[in-house]
Formats: sequence, structure tokens, C-alpha cells
Amino acid sequence: MPPIPVPTPRELLQRAKMFIPPLLDKMHKGQQGRVAVIGGCEDYTGAPYFSANASALLGADMSHVICEPQAAQVIKTYSPNIMVHPYMRQSHHTQEGMQSAEEISQKTIDLLERLHAIVIGPGLGRDALMQDTAAKIIEAAKARNMPMVVDADGLFLVQNRPSIIKGYTKAILTPNRAEFARLCAAMKVDPQGCDEAEVCAKLARAFGGVTIIQKGPKDHISNGKQTFVCDLEGGLKRSGGQGDTLTGSLVTFLAWTRAYRDRIWNLSRRGTDEVGYSSHDNSLSDSELNSLSAFGAAAVTRYCSRVAYEKKGRALQASDLSVELGNAFNYLFETENPKL
Amino acid sequence: MPPIPVPTPRELLQRAKMFIPPLLDKMHKGQQGRVAVIGGCEDYTGAPYFSANASALLGADMSHVICEPQAAQVIKTYSPNIMVHPYMRQSHHTQEGMQSAEEISQKTIDLLERLHAIVIGPGLGRDALMQDTAAKIIEAAKARNMPMVVDADGLFLVQNRPSIIKGYTKAILTPNRAEFARLCAAMKVDPQGCDEAEVCAKLARAFGGVTIIQKGPKDHISNGKQTFVCDLEGGLKRSGGQGDTLTGSLVTFLAWTRAYRDRIWNLSRRGTDEVGYSSHDNSLSDSELNSLSAFGAAAVTRYCSRVAYEKKGRALQASDLSVELGNAFNYLFETENPKL
Repeated sequence: MPPIPVPTPRELLQRAKMFIPPLLDKMHKGQQGRVAVIGGCEDYTGAPYFSANASALLGADMSHVICEPQAAQVIKTYSPNIMVHPYMRQSHHTQEGMQSAEEISQKTIDLLERLHAIVIGPGLGRDALMQDTAAKIIEAAKARNMPMVVDADGLFLVQNRPSIIKGYTKAILTPNRAEFARLCAAMKVDPQGCDEAEVCAKLARAFGGVTIIQKGPKDHISNGKQTFVCDLEGGLKRSGGQGDTLTGSLVTFLAWTRAYRDRIWNLSRRGTDEVGYSSHDNSLSDSELNSLSAFGAAAVTRYCSRVAYEKKGRALQASDLSVELGNAFNYLFETENPKL
Repeated sequence: MPPIPVPTPRELLQRAKMFIPPLLDKMHKGQQGRVAVIGGCEDYTGAPYFSANASALLGADMSHVICEPQAAQVIKTYSPNIMVHPYMRQSHHTQEGMQSAEEISQKTIDLLERLHAIVIGPGLGRDALMQDTAAKIIEAAKARNMPMVVDADGLFLVQNRPSIIKGYTKAILTPNRAEFARLCAAMKVDPQGCDEAEVCAKLARAFGGVTIIQKGPKDHISNGKQTFVCDLEGGLKRSGGQGDTLTGSLVTFLAWTRAYRDRIWNLSRRGTDEVGYSSHDNSLSDSELNSLSAFGAAAVTRYCSRVAYEKKGRALQASDLSVELGNAFNYLFETENPKL
């Protein structure tokens, strides 16, 4: 089999553009994306907020956070634009009502019906009940064939129970350096003698075609068959929380793939003239949609990181990335010839 | 023994610059510093926030606060960029579970493994259980040879139990005028007939070589052997909370000394050409690293205080200092000839 030719960054962004729904007068609330971030516990409130906020700022119509009640009180104060639901429980809460993960997960699972895509993990923590509840939600999302991003302590779950995600090709894992190493160990993937792109592809194959975004100085993106590298210039500050801009951007791209699959806009009536996008006569496969979403979100995040770093230098905080999201979209997807 | 010549402020900042890690493409999250502030109780939430926020804005990758639960709920709302853990307890809480300082301190001690340096005291309060828990954390940090800053109600602890810090040369105490007088009384240091620098040196010696920053119109910094004066122009408004910018800046410098000791960047491959810092062929001793950290943080704080005062005058608030931290770093460490 001849190797699949690797598209240029420009081609990848142009292809991603094909499935981004245009903003049309006739559309109604929710069609540009209804997403949720599952995470937020006693220890972490920033991560799920940054992720949900990024999803909203990139263009999702409705962004939810589902978290532990104390965390919910705090996350609600960060922004009235995000809907925050106190549906999760940590182990120490169960003394009150002795609830099981199955019972606790039910309210979130009911909400899934109204969502296009979810992120699991930012600020989830490692509490056993939180992990078990997240596992129930993953199972339910899989049963609905829902695209999902797994990050942070969601990857801790995957590392401990790989079978929960193995073979589910609508999932994207977004490990940083340390998380990637732990996933490789869990899947017995030996990085010895391989370059970074090859190890990423090996891990994606070990997970049965799940897409992996290995974050680093360059982001490697692989579904096991095709591997892309996203090396747009990013910032040099690696402060905590920047990965949440990636997961939030990504879940919005995944919601857009759903809009594309559902053909919510009239392809035949829409050409490049009408809305500035090319109409999608050439259908994109599920696996392409995943890879292109991953590349698009990585490019958006790296753009935000670079511009925020240019402005703030060492003082850069995760919140500085959020404010660049609108500009990132305009630059990468609405500009004639973005410098890539 | 001939007296050690006293370097100029410019020389001191240039030497401090030698151990500040460059921002390199290959670095990953956490390497520029993982720090925590232990403090925050029923009465005080601003102080630990200002300290942790300063640490983040000067350049630490990950900044934590560890405090009492009610305080945690509030501090979390100040910024999603800071990780806030509700691990401390005040005496009235123990009616619920009768926990001991030893039990309460355990979660924080577990977190120490992931940290480079800590601040103890901002907003800690004088509740006996909070003081006892802080003492357990200090002991655990000492056992890990971890650099630490002790300020505010952490100094109340030191004044009552000097042996907890005596001889631990990785500690820096940052007393204001009143706290300094109380520490001198506790250590039977007689200021009579000595100038301020001499008293500071005497107190440092009484503590067995702990570094003291005596804050005032001029900051005196001494480890008992060498004494520096930091007299960069500061602001004239002495509103509460400005000392927290000092402790936060300082803990980031201390985290950087750890990066320097661990040689996280390749010294041989790094010269002035590559990143704008001089390579450190001349190794700095532990005691030099402490003194230079103290001087660097004092200079940063005084710069912030002066610039904020120029902008705000009598209306200056502690939060006005925070926003100048990025500029302070750039001016003092990235400018050709800062006016000192």
C-alpha cells in the first residue's frame, strides 16, 4: 500500500474549513454546537472553566460544565456565559446519601441527549467516585456514538482502564509529555528507536484507531493510519491551563463535525460565493473529520499561545489565551493567506 | 578575614539573571516553577491570593494555595489561574471530626513532592490548629530540603518556636518593622548601638544563617555573613498586601534556583547569544542563590510599588502591584541598562 501523502498545514486548515458551519440567518440557537466539559472538583475549578470558555469563544452556542457542587459554586462566578451543573460527587459526599456512580451519572447521561460532543477530564481529579462516574458517562456517550475529548485526569482513567476507550474511534486523547509516557506504558508501546510521530501512531494503533494529540514543542496528531504534525509557532511559556484551550477548541470542532454530518446547512444551495466556504461536495470521512478537528484545534491553540506570549511574556496566564480565540479563528479561517 | 566586597545593585541583578532559566522551546509545563502558598483562613483571603498570583505573574508555571475550606471557596473566585486546595482546618472545625494537625497536614505534605518551593504564612492567622499544621508542613518541607519563605503569621509561629527554623539555611524570613522587632526579642538580639544592616545580620546569625529580608524604606537582606541593601525607589503608599508581592516573587526565584541546581537547561550549549542570558560557568552556592533571590524579589517588588504608586498615588491597592510584575521582570532583567 503506498503511503498516504501528507497534506500541508494550509491544506489541512482549508479542509477543516469545509465542515465549519457558516453563520446563516436562518440558523437557531444550538446549531453551532452544544458541548459539555465533565470535570471540576474540590481541588480544581480553573481547568473545566478554561475548557468550556474556550469552546464558547471559538463558537459553540451552548457550553456546559458538569462538576462537583462546591466547584460548581466557584465556576459559576467565573462567567455567567457558561452553564454549570453540580451533578458529580466525590467520595466524601457519599456519606450523606450513599450514592453509587451509576446513580450519580444519571443526570449527566440525561443531558447527553442535548449535546453534540463532550470533554472528559479537566479538573476531574483522581477521587475514585469521580473516576467511576466519569467511566459511566464515557460508556453512555459511546452508546450514543458521541464524539469526545479525553484529557488530564480523564487520561488517568484511560491509563487504568484502557478498554473503556479502545476501539472507540470517535474519541480523541490529548496527553502532554508525562501523560503520553504513562499511556504508552499502559499500552505496552515501546518508544525505543522510533521518532515522536511514529510513537504517536503506535499508541493510536494500540488504542484501536483512537486519535491522539501528543502535545509538545510540535503537536503530533495520529489516528494510527495518518499522522500530522502541527508546528505553527506557539508561545514559550508553559503555564498550567493552556491545554484546556485545546480541549475546549477541540470539542467545538467536534460539534461542528456533527453539524456537518447532519447537513444542517443546505450544501447544494451553498457555494464559495454565498458564505466564503467551499461547499462540501467531497464528503469527509469520520476519521478525516477527527484528524482535521484535531489539527484545527491545535492550530487555534498554538496561535492563541503565541499571540498571548508576545503580549505577556513570562507573565502569561492560561486566561490570556482565551481572549485570543476569536482572533485565532479569524486569522486561521477567515484570512486570505495566513502565515502558517 | 578580609570583608567580602559588597556588589552593586546592577551586579546583584546580573548575578540573579544567571540562574533564571531561559524559556526554551523544549521545556515542558512545570519546569519554570511549581510553588504553593500555605495560608488563607476565615479572616484572610487576599494575602495568599496576592502571593500566589505574584508567583504566577513573575513566571512560575503552576501556583497553588493551600488554605481553610471557606477561604478556598473565595480565593478560587479571584482567579481561575491559581489552584486552591481546602486542606487546612481551624480549631472550630475539629468539633466535626476531631482531626489532629498531623492528620490535617498530610494532604499538603503529599503535595510537596510535586513542588519546588513554598511560602508559609500569608493569611495563615493565629488559630492554634492552623499554626500547628503549618509547623508540621515546615518540618516536612525541611526534611525534603525545600526552599521556603516565611512571612506574616508564619513569623508568629517562628517567633514562638524559633527552633523550627533555626539553622535551616534554605529558609527566608520576610519581616516588616513590627515582626522584625518581635523576632529580635524572641532571639534576644539587641539592636542597641547597631545600624539597621548590622541588626539584620545579627538576627540572621541568631537564626543560624537563615536569610532575613527586613522590609522598610530600604530592604536589608542578610544571611549573617553577607548583607545587601535594596534601595531601588519604591512607592510611598504602604497599603496592606504589598508584602505578598514580595513573598510571591521570592518563591518563584527560589523555584528557579531549583531549576538551576537541577541544570534543566544545557549550560554548555547556552550562551549570551542564544537566549540573552550569560551562561553560568561560575556556579553559584546555595547561600548566594538565597541572597540573590531575595535581592531580585525585593527589586521586583519595589519596582511594582513605585510604578503602581506613580499611577495611583494614595489610591494604590495591593492589586495594583500585581499588574506590574511582567513589566518589572522585563525592565530589571531584559533591559540593557535599567536605572537602579
